Amino acid sequence: MQNNIMAKAEEAIAAAAKAQEAAELSQFTVNNLWILVAAAMVFIMHLGFAALESGFVQRKNVVNILFKNSMIIAIGLLTYCLCGFNLMYPGFAEDSSGFFAFAGFGLTVPEGGMTSAYADYTYWSDFIFQAMFAATGATIVSGAVAERIKLVPFLIFATLFVAISYPITGSWKWGGGWLDQLGFYDFAGSTLVHSVGGWAALACIILLGPRTGKYTSKGIRAIPGHSMPLAAIGVFLLWFGWFGFNGGSVLSADPALTSLVFTTTSIAAAAGAVGAFVMSYGMFRSYDLSMVLNGILGGLVGITAGADIMSITDALIIGFIAGLIIPLSVTMFDKLKLDDPVGATSVHLVCGIWGTLAVAIFGDCDGCGSLVAQLTGIAAIGAFTFAFAFILFLIIKVTLGVRVSEEEEEIGLDIGEHELAAYG
Amino acid sequence: MQNNIMAKAEEAIAAAAKAQEAAELSQFTVNNLWILVAAAMVFIMHLGFAALESGFVQRKNVVNILFKNSMIIAIGLLTYCLCGFNLMYPGFAEDSSGFFAFAGFGLTVPEGGMTSAYADYTYWSDFIFQAMFAATGATIVSGAVAERIKLVPFLIFATLFVAISYPITGSWKWGGGWLDQLGFYDFAGSTLVHSVGGWAALACIILLGPRTGKYTSKGIRAIPGHSMPLAAIGVFLLWFGWFGFNGGSVLSADPALTSLVFTTTSIAAAAGAVGAFVMSYGMFRSYDLSMVLNGILGGLVGITAGADIMSITDALIIGFIAGLIIPLSVTMFDKLKLDDPVGATSVHLVCGIWGTLAVAIFGDCDGCGSLVAQLTGIAAIGAFTFAFAFILFLIIKVTLGVRVSEEEEEIGLDIGEHELAAYG
Amino acid sequence: MQNNIMAKAEEAIAAAAKAQEAAELSQFTVNNLWILVAAAMVFIMHLGFAALESGFVQRKNVVNILFKNSMIIAIGLLTYCLCGFNLMYPGFAEDSSGFFAFAGFGLTVPEGGMTSAYADYTYWSDFIFQAMFAATGATIVSGAVAERIKLVPFLIFATLFVAISYPITGSWKWGGGWLDQLGFYDFAGSTLVHSVGGWAALACIILLGPRTGKYTSKGIRAIPGHSMPLAAIGVFLLWFGWFGFNGGSVLSADPALTSLVFTTTSIAAAAGAVGAFVMSYGMFRSYDLSMVLNGILGGLVGITAGADIMSITDALIIGFIAGLIIPLSVTMFDKLKLDDPVGATSVHLVCGIWGTLAVAIFGDCDGCGSLVAQLTGIAAIGAFTFAFAFILFLIIKVTLGVRVSEEEEEIGLDIGEHELAAYG
Repeated sequence: MQNNIMAKAEEAIAAAAKAQEAAELSQFTVNNLWILVAAAMVFIMHLGFAALESGFVQRKNVVNILFKNSMIIAIGLLTYCLCGFNLMYPGFAEDSSGFFAFAGFGLTVPEGGMTSAYADYTYWSDFIFQAMFAATGATIVSGAVAERIKLVPFLIFATLFVAISYPITGSWKWGGGWLDQLGFYDFAGSTLVHSVGGWAALACIILLGPRTGKYTSKGIRAIPGHSMPLAAIGVFLLWFGWFGFNGGSVLSADPALTSLVFTTTSIAAAAGAVGAFVMSYGMFRSYDLSMVLNGILGGLVGITAGADIMSITDALIIGFIAGLIIPLSVTMFDKLKLDDPVGATSVHLVCGIWGTLAVAIFGDCDGCGSLVAQLTGIAAIGAFTFAFAFILFLIIKVTLGVRVSEEEEEIGLDIGEHELAAYG
Repeated sequence: MQNNIMAKAEEAIAAAAKAQEAAELSQFTVNNLWILVAAAMVFIMHLGFAALESGFVQRKNVVNILFKNSMIIAIGLLTYCLCGFNLMYPGFAEDSSGFFAFAGFGLTVPEGGMTSAYADYTYWSDFIFQAMFAATGATIVSGAVAERIKLVPFLIFATLFVAISYPITGSWKWGGGWLDQLGFYDFAGSTLVHSVGGWAALACIILLGPRTGKYTSKGIRAIPGHSMPLAAIGVFLLWFGWFGFNGGSVLSADPALTSLVFTTTSIAAAAGAVGAFVMSYGMFRSYDLSMVLNGILGGLVGITAGADIMSITDALIIGFIAGLIIPLSVTMFDKLKLDDPVGATSVHLVCGIWGTLAVAIFGDCDGCGSLVAQLTGIAAIGAFTFAFAFILFLIIKVTLGVRVSEEEEEIGLDIGEHELAAYG
Repeated sequence: MQNNIMAKAEEAIAAAAKAQEAAELSQFTVNNLWILVAAAMVFIMHLGFAALESGFVQRKNVVNILFKNSMIIAIGLLTYCLCGFNLMYPGFAEDSSGFFAFAGFGLTVPEGGMTSAYADYTYWSDFIFQAMFAATGATIVSGAVAERIKLVPFLIFATLFVAISYPITGSWKWGGGWLDQLGFYDFAGSTLVHSVGGWAALACIILLGPRTGKYTSKGIRAIPGHSMPLAAIGVFLLWFGWFGFNGGSVLSADPALTSLVFTTTSIAAAAGAVGAFVMSYGMFRSYDLSMVLNGILGGLVGITAGADIMSITDALIIGFIAGLIIPLSVTMFDKLKLDDPVGATSVHLVCGIWGTLAVAIFGDCDGCGSLVAQLTGIAAIGAFTFAFAFILFLIIKVTLGVRVSEEEEEIGLDIGEHELAAYG
């Protein structure tokens, strides 16, 4: 009888253990699924960028943008596979200074199996989610240098930038490197992704010079984009994708965190639209669609660094200020004769810095995100990225050349580089 | 020995309880994730509306539509945050008549914590999902009043409508108010969302008047939209988003219900296309793309009230009839000289009423959705919404004015209001 | 005391069983949710096709494409409901040869209830996911026959093809028929979906003839598409949808498999872009956007048959070769005077065959996917589909006629068939 009962009790323990395992597998499955769905949403951001940038350039340079952005996502995925992932998540050695390490070329499933390396998702989920982020930096540059850059030199720049520079600075924080140890906080990449793209864009447009006829003795000539519907489609798709960008950066489907992040992200985007509306009306007395669209993006970039640690009111303020910044920043870059046809530097660099600083101002994460840490991160990543991009682009400039001829610029890159008009 | 066994048994009970908790957390996580993904899909409907409405208006009024719709989603989210959510889900007091209550300005996580308030999702998930719905009403109006309305007066109208009118009528059913107690059934909002937008659109176009030159002594002038690809992109994105709109309205990832809802929603949309094809060919002897596109939307609006309680055959009939209605309704509004450039009143008001009635005809939900209840809901919400919208728009009309000048209408609102052409 | 302990032990067993059940429900819920989300993503592929095909045709034939593709998805869903699903998954009898069976018209929830028929999802989830696939075949044809086919004859062809031919060949493998028993491997449909559409397209364009003026005594006239942004939007949306197409074909949210499939799918698409870039530059010395876009699609079609059994390196090679194939194949079809305005036969037929063969070359699935099995599957499905499509289209040709008049082709099908211009 006692043996009988003992057997029953042990049967119960075994059954409970089995149920526990089943519950944990289910939890793992839902967490992993969210990372994959989020990766697909981040992928759609590449369509968002392609549409936005196409819409904001002239009709004669549209094929060129679409070609560049199609190749960037392709090259970005392949180089991240080849070396980027292992540069960004190298597993710094214990005594490492956390500046640089490299886990080797190519991808190999860890020894323990593809579901062994992480608590909440598989090796491949980690790779594909991060890989979708990687090309974003180069895509940001693509818009800023549009309408005058040579195709192949740009693709070479983009390849090396995505393969080397982006993952190295990324490793400093997300790879567990020195900035992470310092307490620098950047939840989903206001600095690591957006300002990195923005710094590279800045370096390139300095070296490339403005579009012919943009800055004349008579003043600044407005060169409006050729399709506002395309631009608007781009911005809405970017907002949609941002739910995956920020929401997936929770790195699990944790209900409290993901739902907070969806909310802060949305509220910041909405407040960005209103901020840009107010400031652009104040500055220009007009209802400026491109400012409102960029205001939405500014709000999204601004909230990205701290989307998981902000209250709704914080998110509203951060987004609203980002929206206010956009018209000011666009005007400032134009005054500096830094020609950026799509406003990428204002959106990604300026609002990226703002969002990273906002963590120090509003954020509340134990022992991290101090003003010193945030400024150090902004400065270090900015200095490295700007220097890398500047030197690389300079080398390409003096060797291959980076700028199309004035005649080609005049007839447009679509015919000049691709012998194809965007519209028939 | 006995103590030993007893300890074992208690260990087993504790282990089983822990497993139970883990399983419930996992279930909560997947339910919550679905609400968030659904919210992102509903967000995409705002792009769908922007594209559809842009496509259906003339080339000279496209920037204006894009500007309005960008601001509406921004304002909609912010006002829902400020007061809409707490007006719509006020928690009516026990002895309340269920007509009006207000839980206060702003959002506050409930005392029990953000995951405590609901069985299947968090406080923020509830908010963001509902907030994405809220702006829809104003977006529907935006299309109907296109091509002749002043920007700022429209934005003021949209703000107050979304902030006050939509949540009050919403509270009557989804907030647990008097219509809910009466047995009125409206699963995902054929009445609460779509006909509400449609009634407001109707009130506005009555007060605003038709576009100049639309109804002449020689008859009705067709004013075709400027981009059928944009319109089609809009409709497909709306269909996609409707999976979140209806599917998310299950308010969990319940497998049986969500999969039924996906199927009824799809079949109704498909049948709507066929219904509109048949009727428009019968009426006009032509293969009318805009009718088919609106037929899809009509089918979607029609199934929305009962997507969770219909058989596939029911869904097919409901969608098909909605499709048949579209060409008839569009023709009827034109005969009444009520000018609606995008057919919003036909799609959202007429098919919204049809879908709500269809619950009484086809639906099978114990003790709810009787014809009396459905008619009461339609009439009460229609009367309140129409009156609110009419009075508000009238006040704006006599104070600020609502209509652009004839010259501005002639040159288009893009140049008139925004000094920017949609296409370069 | 002993009874007491026994009761405790039994209580523990019951609690563990309850926890086990809760865990299994949670697992079922997440698996089912993924099938539904994947279905929504596959739905978006229909927008992708509509945009791609619209972009690649001339401005005067855009409404026609949009009309066809709107009706195809509608008709596809309804016929799959009426008979397709029960033709494709008939439940072959034990002694059946596995060539043909039919479970009857209409849909009926199985006796055991809608969640009883499958381990991982409901009856409706299965239906709606498969239904979204079904119309794809006809959509592929739509692009190939564009710019010269009569509307109603095409819709009749598409209806019968989707209702009868696609499900019968589908049943041979996915319905458990003779090819499945033979060891033929086609994970998500390189053959069953894509080459099936491609074979039908080939049959139709043979019978239909090229567009007037395409092949002249002076050589082949390039007829560029009218909107590269539309085409690019189409390709990016197709890529996005393919995450659902391939990822959902895992038929559960299994973390290891779904994440592998996302990765192989992405890498093949990226490599396809690079392959097409390289080959088209080699052949034409130009940076050809339409080749790169079709290269992405070729990579996606190529990986589809074996996305779940390939290494990343395999995926890269398969996609790269698919990309190389695209410019060669497009040129070959043009040399054969088989006019396919969007390159559908190259993408879906040629790369579909390539992907199916690649399973035999690279794949590693115990006892399946042998070269003989793969060739048998390709040949059998190709022969049946081509014959069905050829005979059906021939009958329609001699009875109703399939080709618009030369005048209508000249003025365009938008005015000719729809009395509506795509752009105002």
